[in-house]
Amino acid sequence: MTPVLYGIGVGPGDPELITVKAMNTLKKVKVIFAPKATEEYKSVAREIITPYLTKEHNVIELTMPMLNQQDVLIKSWQENARMIASYLQQGEDVAFITLGDVNLYSTFYYLYYELKTLIPHLKVEIIPGITSFAAAASRTQWCLADKNHPLIIIPMNKEIDLTEMLVNQSRAVLMKVGKYLPRIKQALKATGPWQGWIISYCGQANEKIHPLSELEEISALPYMTVILLAKE
Amino acid sequence: MTPVLYGIGVGPGDPELITVKAMNTLKKVKVIFAPKATEEYKSVAREIITPYLTKEHNVIELTMPMLNQQDVLIKSWQENARMIASYLQQGEDVAFITLGDVNLYSTFYYLYYELKTLIPHLKVEIIPGITSFAAAASRTQWCLADKNHPLIIIPMNKEIDLTEMLVNQSRAVLMKVGKYLPRIKQALKATGPWQGWIISYCGQANEKIHPLSELEEISALPYMTVILLAKE
Repeated sequence: MTPVLYGIGVGPGDPELITVKAMNTLKKVKVIFAPKATEEYKSVAREIITPYLTKEHNVIELTMPMLNQQDVLIKSWQENARMIASYLQQGEDVAFITLGDVNLYSTFYYLYYELKTLIPHLKVEIIPGITSFAAAASRTQWCLADKNHPLIIIPMNKEIDLTEMLVNQSRAVLMKVGKYLPRIKQALKATGPWQGWIISYCGQANEKIHPLSELEEISALPYMTVILLAKE
Repeated sequence: MTPVLYGIGVGPGDPELITVKAMNTLKKVKVIFAPKATEEYKSVAREIITPYLTKEHNVIELTMPMLNQQDVLIKSWQENARMIASYLQQGEDVAFITLGDVNLYSTFYYLYYELKTLIPHLKVEIIPGITSFAAAASRTQWCLADKNHPLIIIPMNKEIDLTEMLVNQSRAVLMKVGKYLPRIKQALKATGPWQGWIISYCGQANEKIHPLSELEEISALPYMTVILLAKE
């Protein structure tokens, strides 16, 4: 049997927000790779699946830096891919868990592409997860978009011209807000008036929720913040 | 105890793609409302949760037409809200299940707003679900968007100028494609070249997957079709 790499989205924080399929897959796959941002940090993805782990599980944490330096990133994907490949090459099924969904703004695909160069006939199964913005919308009872509205999802980064991006939109989600707060305030003023919510660490113990009307009073927000936006 | 209305996203089709929280909530809430498009149709949402139902469950199907006539829609939301309210007013917790996620292009919020006018102090809990596009991306092993790309999600309808909407985007999802196929072909030609996938009935028994390169040969697609798009 060719071993399988499972890419599993574990949702934004609440262990109950993983899928039944993710739970059943974690029951049978004993080698689990869990990403974390730095050596010292805890892996949030690992914490989410803790209720589903037994003594038979072997959870291996992989440091995956969140930087804009492409050469450092590529080196880290290659090293981590080699580590995962060493288990697959021994015939072992493995799981890689990721916060939120696997298909949106996760590190899974970078690893997967590296792994495919190491193991060309790699078998892969991807299990989608609840994204932070769907969970945030549920917590605030806020309809992200109805049948008359497209929705744009914007991961904040230094290249994005947010004002240009928002000007023709009426529903938007800003992800990974953190250090881009000043730029966001400026863009929302230029393209508003917007209504919405600011949600940090959605579903985790330290969750914080603010209505968008309080944005001006906020001077700093964590990386793991989602902003939900709507205008008429 | 004030009764609770649970809005539950049951994902796109595979019963294993509901969340553990949805499963646990269905275990304790015995009155479940399931939408369907017409009297004669089956409720797909009901089929998804069938493995989790016991003899104690009372599943009530609600006909919720998918039309563009606002007056017919409002009448249907009001009638269905009155039906749901009659159970809540007897002190019973109820669940309303919806395909995919509750917060995106579902009928839940229309019902919820109507219910709030009938029961102002209504308690509501929303449980997010896996959206069709996340499931479709997982099936095709296709990264919807990485950290350098915003993603626009577009529900097809007769008012949308798709060409205008796609021209400045590099990652997009088209939902509820069905009868808008000719318009989509035209818009993709005008704004491409695009790569991607066409997925109908994702995760259901009649699922169909085509690479986007086959689009020209396709003359009809069902309503429940998602198109995933990327260009450089």
